[in-house]
Amino acid sequence: MPRAVVLLSGGLDSATTLAIARDGAFDCHCLTVDYGQRHHAELDAAARVAAVLGATEQRVFKLDLTAFGGSALTDRSIPVPETPTRGIPITYVPARNTIFLSLALAWAEVLGARDIFFGANAVDYSGYPDCRPEYVRAFEALAGLATRAAVEGSRLTLHTPIIALSKADIIRRGTALGIDYGLTVSCYQPDPDGRACGRCDACRLRRAGFAAAQIADPTRYAAGAA
Amino acid sequence: MPRAVVLLSGGLDSATTLAIARDGAFDCHCLTVDYGQRHHAELDAAARVAAVLGATEQRVFKLDLTAFGGSALTDRSIPVPETPTRGIPITYVPARNTIFLSLALAWAEVLGARDIFFGANAVDYSGYPDCRPEYVRAFEALAGLATRAAVEGSRLTLHTPIIALSKADIIRRGTALGIDYGLTVSCYQPDPDGRACGRCDACRLRRAGFAAAQIADPTRYAAGAA
Repeated sequence: MPRAVVLLSGGLDSATTLAIARDGAFDCHCLTVDYGQRHHAELDAAARVAAVLGATEQRVFKLDLTAFGGSALTDRSIPVPETPTRGIPITYVPARNTIFLSLALAWAEVLGARDIFFGANAVDYSGYPDCRPEYVRAFEALAGLATRAAVEGSRLTLHTPIIALSKADIIRRGTALGIDYGLTVSCYQPDPDGRACGRCDACRLRRAGFAAAQIADPTRYAAGAA
Repeated sequence: MPRAVVLLSGGLDSATTLAIARDGAFDCHCLTVDYGQRHHAELDAAARVAAVLGATEQRVFKLDLTAFGGSALTDRSIPVPETPTRGIPITYVPARNTIFLSLALAWAEVLGARDIFFGANAVDYSGYPDCRPEYVRAFEALAGLATRAAVEGSRLTLHTPIIALSKADIIRRGTALGIDYGLTVSCYQPDPDGRACGRCDACRLRRAGFAAAQIADPTRYAAGAA
């Protein structure tokens, strides 16, 4: 089985991406980044998801993006918005996906993997610039020049299997692959038990996806979640 | 003065790059990455260089690339070569510059800086793939798609002012700008007092550069350095 690095956050999208990579018979090495996000529920979820979906290994890489801040997810003085906003929301973390993909690229080279899986979505998403197809292509072009592996002729493929799917279609696909989405955490501000707020952008997109897919939403919501 | 992020390692090339950025009237915010390199002499040098050359601030960002290994600089079980090798040497750190530039991109966005300075050199260098002009252009193209700033029309420039200079010309340029290269550490394996081995690739390129520039080499070499 070819080795792949899979970026795994613990949310719905990256869990589905991992299931698709496993379904494609990849030997999956999951990379989860502890970047100083507001809560650990997502990291706990990533470990559960990796185990249940048959990842070969899962590593948590620490890196403190609160040193830079600039986002509601990396600066606790900025509240997570609970109503839709215009444009790119303040939950955008500067250059986060570029940093994550760079780390995945490093690990892929060490593992001898030619494939990286990345759960970007550009349909039911928050408008983050580093989730768009043109961004993905630009990173793949960079990867084709960045490494010893590339110079020696190994071509890296950056797979984004859910980039063009609606949230409902992502959920249908994952459900068909047997994912228990109750294991995943998408919320930006879950309570200490990992229960979702129901109000943030990530919760809204996720809840609407289950409704549109006509699949029961297994998310554990906090008491009082909208 | 426009703000710029300057990647500063503590070596000769990045010190020269900082001096050039300062000479160009940039307000310089230096980013030094403590990535698990073999020694701290380089980090100490970076702090000295930032202070002496008039950086506005210098930050050390920690990130443990020994978690991935794959290089003599991030895996202590791999010795640093002391004779020239064919091809890309084992001191190449997988995707290191991509990771560093991603971090610089994140900080630049938070600072509102449109300029990043990067001391890559593709003449008297070790053949690292992520020092070549085509790599630099690919990163700049990625940066043009990756961030909120890019979407909102702010164009990021990745400056590599020494990329096409010989080591001798870099040293001449830096000397003209008043750099005391005795403050910098290029060696991959200095002794505990920061004295250079004289044998690694970085030492060989540096020493040959001073010789070719006909400038006295201020490097502190360890006893017994070749």
